[in-house]
Amino acid sequence: MVTIYWAEDGAFPPGDRGLAYGDGLFETIRVDGRSAYLQIYHLDRMARDAERLRIPVDRAELERTLQKALERYSDHYSGNSWVLKLTLTRGSGGRGYRPTPELQPNLLVSHAAMPPLPPVTGVVADFSRVPLTVNPLFSGIKSLNRIEQVMAASELHDGVFEVLMANAAGHIVEGTRTNLFIETEDGWRTPPPDSVAVMGVMRRVVLERLRAKGEIVHEAPVMLDDMFAPSCRGVYLTNSVLGIVPVRTLAEQDLPVTGRLATI
Amino acid sequence: MVTIYWAEDGAFPPGDRGLAYGDGLFETIRVDGRSAYLQIYHLDRMARDAERLRIPVDRAELERTLQKALERYSDHYSGNSWVLKLTLTRGSGGRGYRPTPELQPNLLVSHAAMPPLPPVTGVVADFSRVPLTVNPLFSGIKSLNRIEQVMAASELHDGVFEVLMANAAGHIVEGTRTNLFIETEDGWRTPPPDSVAVMGVMRRVVLERLRAKGEIVHEAPVMLDDMFAPSCRGVYLTNSVLGIVPVRTLAEQDLPVTGRLATI
Repeated sequence: MVTIYWAEDGAFPPGDRGLAYGDGLFETIRVDGRSAYLQIYHLDRMARDAERLRIPVDRAELERTLQKALERYSDHYSGNSWVLKLTLTRGSGGRGYRPTPELQPNLLVSHAAMPPLPPVTGVVADFSRVPLTVNPLFSGIKSLNRIEQVMAASELHDGVFEVLMANAAGHIVEGTRTNLFIETEDGWRTPPPDSVAVMGVMRRVVLERLRAKGEIVHEAPVMLDDMFAPSCRGVYLTNSVLGIVPVRTLAEQDLPVTGRLATI
Repeated sequence: MVTIYWAEDGAFPPGDRGLAYGDGLFETIRVDGRSAYLQIYHLDRMARDAERLRIPVDRAELERTLQKALERYSDHYSGNSWVLKLTLTRGSGGRGYRPTPELQPNLLVSHAAMPPLPPVTGVVADFSRVPLTVNPLFSGIKSLNRIEQVMAASELHDGVFEVLMANAAGHIVEGTRTNLFIETEDGWRTPPPDSVAVMGVMRRVVLERLRAKGEIVHEAPVMLDDMFAPSCRGVYLTNSVLGIVPVRTLAEQDLPVTGRLATI
């Protein structure tokens, strides 16, 4: 049984393990009017990640809370788009790090205005000085352990939409809040699942659409040189709230922008 | 200026970044009566880690809050030992991961009873199946990003005091809540600072005391074989609340226990 907290009530339990250890998960979901965009994909991911972290939660319970949140908040935005956030934690208490069997999850619900959308003509991106470290057991999980993304995002400044992060092997893996796709002569490429810190919902959508259109897609490492090679036809960042964002300038070098991924 | 929250008031801000991203730090401090054990070391670490994460906090402010907490809670424990916890976060708000300049830190204060102390005759330990990943930029920081330790600690069961975690290079680095020391024919060894997830306060104390006694100490990687070699005279775990804990059985193999480190 999950305990639900509404952010506007202003109080969350101080003993919660999400706060203590980042022991939980979150989803930020774009809502258009009363319709949660990619709702099933978001619920899929939260339910799957909860299982991987052994946080006992029922997908139907998440879905009911999401529906209640849509009813509760939609009128604030009078038909405009907004962002719904669900934060699921393992609950309050336990003795130190070790989770105890009686823990009951907490689910915090909050909402925010839509961020400004990036221009369809493309954005400016750079490389982060913060290396990305991904634990192979927990790759892709949208957990509350996001210090690396916070510190990388603190490098962002006006005019730079995103910084890309590399792992110890030198592979360019993802942005702070985006997954990475490139189009090459040999088809599409995106870093493999076991390398990513967050397995984006929009990454899944793009992969499915590309495959449905008969496009060739490889889940394989992306190296720095791959993005600047003449064979590279475009670099894209994906995010479920912001959509598919072409990169027109990367580390002060211009890249080709065709917008082909957005069309597909 | 830090905003202080007392856990017994039962409410913490739902928009706090400690909860959202693990964007913060914590200290658990043993208190004997009204005296905070290793107080200076704990304050040193929190102030240093805050600087590394660029959380603007004044060490004197942390110290004043610690003093207030000692006055506030000590009577509950009528002279017995207890544990004080300070959780410092970057504050509430900001737009996504990116910290904004106007953020003001939150400081949550809570207390708990002393955990049972392990027997001086030594404890049983094992190896964790969870690999340890440490970002070189953030090694040693006692941040709120502790999913790996939570998942490793969930492997603990009755009679096993601790599980030791190895990094991708196969070095045995630390336990979920302890640092590691071994005594060999060539002196003492503990894994180097850039390899540890948490740079324990007790690790610092032990290093200082060993050096003051003229003992030879190496901050160097510890391999599995080092602990089971005939040259190994003892394996110890350190924690500022629990002290110095000899390991008598590791992965079902008996180890020599001399208790020499506790004597020093």
